Amino acid sequence: MGVNSNRVEHFDSHNNGQTTTTIKISMPPPPPLEIHRVELPPERTTLQKLRQRLSEIFFPDDPLHRFKNQPCFKKLLLALQYFFPIFHWAPNYNISLLRSDAISGLTIASLAIPQGISYAKLANLPPIVGLYSSFVPPLIYSLLGSSRHLGVGPVSIASLVMGSMLSEQVSYTQHPILYLKLAFTATFFAGLFQASLGILRLGFVIDFLSKATLLGFMAGAAIIVSLQQLKGLLGIVHFTNKMQIIPVLLSVFRQRHEWSWQTIVLGFGFLAFLLTTRHISMRKPKLFWVSAAAPLTSVILSTILVFLLRDKAHQIAMIGNLPKGLNPPSSNMLFFNGAYLTLAIKTGIVTGILSLTEGIAVGRTFAALKNYQIDGNKEMMAIGLMNIAGSCSSCYVTTGSFSRSAVNYNAGAQTAVSNIIMAAAVLVTLLFLMPLFYYTPNVVLAAIIITAVIGLIDYQGALKLWKVDKLDFFACVCSFFGVLFISVPLGLGIAVAISVFKILLHVSRPNTLVLGNIPGTQIFHNVNQYKEALRVPSFLILAVESPMYFANSTYLQERVLRWVREEEECTKANNTSSLKCIILDMTAVTAIDTSGLDTLCELRKMLEKRSLQLVLANPVGSVMEKLHTSTVLDSFGLKGVYLTVGEAVADISSSWKAEP
Amino acid sequence: MGVNSNRVEHFDSHNNGQTTTTIKISMPPPPPLEIHRVELPPERTTLQKLRQRLSEIFFPDDPLHRFKNQPCFKKLLLALQYFFPIFHWAPNYNISLLRSDAISGLTIASLAIPQGISYAKLANLPPIVGLYSSFVPPLIYSLLGSSRHLGVGPVSIASLVMGSMLSEQVSYTQHPILYLKLAFTATFFAGLFQASLGILRLGFVIDFLSKATLLGFMAGAAIIVSLQQLKGLLGIVHFTNKMQIIPVLLSVFRQRHEWSWQTIVLGFGFLAFLLTTRHISMRKPKLFWVSAAAPLTSVILSTILVFLLRDKAHQIAMIGNLPKGLNPPSSNMLFFNGAYLTLAIKTGIVTGILSLTEGIAVGRTFAALKNYQIDGNKEMMAIGLMNIAGSCSSCYVTTGSFSRSAVNYNAGAQTAVSNIIMAAAVLVTLLFLMPLFYYTPNVVLAAIIITAVIGLIDYQGALKLWKVDKLDFFACVCSFFGVLFISVPLGLGIAVAISVFKILLHVSRPNTLVLGNIPGTQIFHNVNQYKEALRVPSFLILAVESPMYFANSTYLQERVLRWVREEEECTKANNTSSLKCIILDMTAVTAIDTSGLDTLCELRKMLEKRSLQLVLANPVGSVMEKLHTSTVLDSFGLKGVYLTVGEAVADISSSWKAEP
Repeated sequence: MGVNSNRVEHFDSHNNGQTTTTIKISMPPPPPLEIHRVELPPERTTLQKLRQRLSEIFFPDDPLHRFKNQPCFKKLLLALQYFFPIFHWAPNYNISLLRSDAISGLTIASLAIPQGISYAKLANLPPIVGLYSSFVPPLIYSLLGSSRHLGVGPVSIASLVMGSMLSEQVSYTQHPILYLKLAFTATFFAGLFQASLGILRLGFVIDFLSKATLLGFMAGAAIIVSLQQLKGLLGIVHFTNKMQIIPVLLSVFRQRHEWSWQTIVLGFGFLAFLLTTRHISMRKPKLFWVSAAAPLTSVILSTILVFLLRDKAHQIAMIGNLPKGLNPPSSNMLFFNGAYLTLAIKTGIVTGILSLTEGIAVGRTFAALKNYQIDGNKEMMAIGLMNIAGSCSSCYVTTGSFSRSAVNYNAGAQTAVSNIIMAAAVLVTLLFLMPLFYYTPNVVLAAIIITAVIGLIDYQGALKLWKVDKLDFFACVCSFFGVLFISVPLGLGIAVAISVFKILLHVSRPNTLVLGNIPGTQIFHNVNQYKEALRVPSFLILAVESPMYFANSTYLQERVLRWVREEEECTKANNTSSLKCIILDMTAVTAIDTSGLDTLCELRKMLEKRSLQLVLANPVGSVMEKLHTSTVLDSFGLKGVYLTVGEAVADISSSWKAEP
Repeated sequence: MGVNSNRVEHFDSHNNGQTTTTIKISMPPPPPLEIHRVELPPERTTLQKLRQRLSEIFFPDDPLHRFKNQPCFKKLLLALQYFFPIFHWAPNYNISLLRSDAISGLTIASLAIPQGISYAKLANLPPIVGLYSSFVPPLIYSLLGSSRHLGVGPVSIASLVMGSMLSEQVSYTQHPILYLKLAFTATFFAGLFQASLGILRLGFVIDFLSKATLLGFMAGAAIIVSLQQLKGLLGIVHFTNKMQIIPVLLSVFRQRHEWSWQTIVLGFGFLAFLLTTRHISMRKPKLFWVSAAAPLTSVILSTILVFLLRDKAHQIAMIGNLPKGLNPPSSNMLFFNGAYLTLAIKTGIVTGILSLTEGIAVGRTFAALKNYQIDGNKEMMAIGLMNIAGSCSSCYVTTGSFSRSAVNYNAGAQTAVSNIIMAAAVLVTLLFLMPLFYYTPNVVLAAIIITAVIGLIDYQGALKLWKVDKLDFFACVCSFFGVLFISVPLGLGIAVAISVFKILLHVSRPNTLVLGNIPGTQIFHNVNQYKEALRVPSFLILAVESPMYFANSTYLQERVLRWVREEEECTKANNTSSLKCIILDMTAVTAIDTSGLDTLCELRKMLEKRSLQLVLANPVGSVMEKLHTSTVLDSFGLKGVYLTVGEAVADISSSWKAEP
């Protein structure tokens, strides 16, 4: 600043092939400027640094802050409340809360019973397992869970993934006992995996399933599941157990002779009814109970209908006999060796991570609506323990279900007691009402499943992704087609790989921006974004927009040299004052590793050979520390590091003035 | 600023459990401040953005800049020079350059012949293949390569990796033809892989092998190779072909009855000689020729010795008969189907990437010393084509060798002609001198290999890593032990995974810093790093030090809320003016995705419920663009985004003053 005063320079600069005309006007003399020293952060030992880093990684929420400065007894109470949130709200529980919870509990029970039966069929399990899974896990969750609105039970995604992964290797119809054993063992491992993620505080693992990825994944899964339900909806008997779209479609059309018109009429009738109720509830959220009650209504109506027509419609498949009674223990069915152990573990981990993602996301959504917080790691422990307990009592994978929680919330649930009420209703069903389901046709379950999963296809969300972030959209599309054409775990894997690749791409090809001064201020900004930002003659000010890592150090070196080359060619062509100094704005360089340090050294040396000065502006604390310990700082010298770009420009140009 | 003027506040703030006492002094009234609008970057279509992004990813060096504004004929000439750099320097070649090149070429030939024979043995190949590989590839490189100092030939790392990977499945002694076929096919795939990386401009793939990783990898490999050479050095006949440290050591001690004292005396004698010469050259770089000539001297001396003692020392294993003549064609030995194809491709890719890394790194090092630039992608094409040509003329994987290039550089090489001279010397050897190697003992080759690989152990580099960057050191140690105890490709894989994990960890747990004002300026800085930076009352200014991605959006949301909670507790405890506004400094948020946008929205809503204002300061161009297209910007409103933290503080506090 202040250099070349009283001179106006015109020149054309080449930025990425675009020719822009910049007018450089001399700036008013800056106010007398104090130069601030760049300081090192306070010294800490390696152990202190490690401790802080680990506490940021594993305890970012500072879970012990409640316990600070509390008496011993209070601490004990707080710990009890921490591990069993029921102690937190139970003392203040009253009759008006109970009334709300009872209403919402009964409402979700009416949804839970048909859903339980349908989702169990989705996992190729006997329908009764779905009801068992709506009894024990909600009870456990109401003790351990911290969400007040989560409706717990089997969910479509986890059911279908479990069904598809297990069925590809074992058929339920041929080996029912082995299949059940596999399902319970997978549930056990899912719970173990979830609980250990919580205990080891590795909750951030599920963050790597981005929303974009899940959007595509769920849409793909919903399509596959809907197509698979054509088996029930068309009354087909022999159907593929593969999960890719092509074999499923082939199966549908090759078995045309098995289609039964009675089933089709019944099925599409109820499908239309369910979709209509869903549409009504979506348009008027107050009428949420219309869609909440529709499944149970459909089940009752269809059962009566089939009962009345029982002599005429033999082709309509029915659920048949269901055993009465409570969950039988199943811990004897878990196995920890043998050929199928890998399959059980793999299925457990995939279903575990998917159900965890849904449970946590749903819990967070409703907590945000009522302005309370959910502790992710604690929720993981609760969901994990609930699945471990479930695997010992004939339940398969359960989690917080979006549809149940939404109904629960809308019906006015206040605490986890609504889950207890729901469990009680399921208990009554299990003990007394099972024979009523004898005539329930499978086709109505297929219609319920289709209605449920169709809601998972969020094409508007995908459109928004396309509008805002093309790479997110790409990850979404990849997981969609991966699930449709390859397989559920592989599709998911591809999508996660793309998301990670996106991060790595950003790191390995970071932006470098040319900064200019906004006249009359000490603000330096991207000249492309701010038309009023003017380049300072004789200076090239570059902002590096990424940490300097091994993955980008070579690129950054070449890119900076290219900027210098272009700037030199430009000044030569325009006969403007030649380049003397390059300032690297390090504000966004939030970390540096040994390769990055080497690059800085190398750059300084290479530019020095061309008699160009390289200075750094505003290195952050951790970068300063590394510059210092690696002695790179010494090679830059006292005048090589400035606190701001403005101070660097002012100091260096005044030193030029001092020299003749 | 200017808020609470004429008041001094004392209070304790809790930062990460440390209690620091901050004194808040009212600041002098700032100069009348103009508020600048945050601007969107100039509008571009999706196609333009994609084009620019792709050109930054694949053409960061702008390879076509030479061709701009040139006449047609000149363009053709430049293209020819681009693909065949020989046309670049050949027109100016003269006799004095030739003299320098001849001297250096003969010097590296004296090193290349014993090295070729030794390294071929390292890859379990017949010694003659090593000589073949020092003939054809250097000739090809001198046509295509852009480095003037690279000495081309087989290198230790690629040789040992190829030897270990192939020998684990096929034994050379049992199936010599199959082994040779595998080696040539692997070389072909290595070349294909290298050339395609260059053609597809995916050179950044090799950047993911960080220097730290390679340091550990090379040290581990050097130790394994040295131990394996004990076979030759001790005269053991039956030896394991495994590459892990434990079986190798077991093999050495279990075969103690095969140790031969004559071999041991001869071997350790020459080893001592070679190490001494290496030591001399390292201490006095001018005496580089001492270590450069030592291998050939050792080979000649030992051959003469064994020839003289040929009747007395039967236990000393010798090279034996070597066929005279030029490289036979080997394109008929390549295969592209069958059971071993996967092994060949895998070996090709691993050796290809390793040799490429060495070649490019060595080329860059010497180019930097002489201040010229190497085009990474072009070098890859040159090295790749040289290996494809090599695989058709009985050569195995070659690249720019560090030891040869160092000798070449020190001997005064000026152009790639030194490689041609070396090839000519090897040609003479192949045609006429092969019988001279009949009595060369294997033990001297073992000594040469040990001397070469011991130089790869850089314990000082590892110490520096420990000092500067603990995670880099960890990656280094992991690749070291991975190679020693598991296997070469797996060790390398683990190290790459750790390096990538480090990037992901940094992204998923970014720093958030509290900023304070440096009195009398508009500079806001980390209060931990700068003791003079003072917090501004009623404001919480947070800097987010990472892009906002799906991988960290949940964390950032919770972390910001924790900062707010801590700040509120702190102001409550100290009775200072309560928190009213949170400013997020977005300077280092260089990118945002849909999850990050959702987080910003969510945060704003949650803070609004607590009647706290959230504003953004200095969002960069791409972030502004996404805020705009996703309509998040609208929810923040006009007064929600400021150009700098200083302007935000000034404007908001003046608006508070205006309200009563």
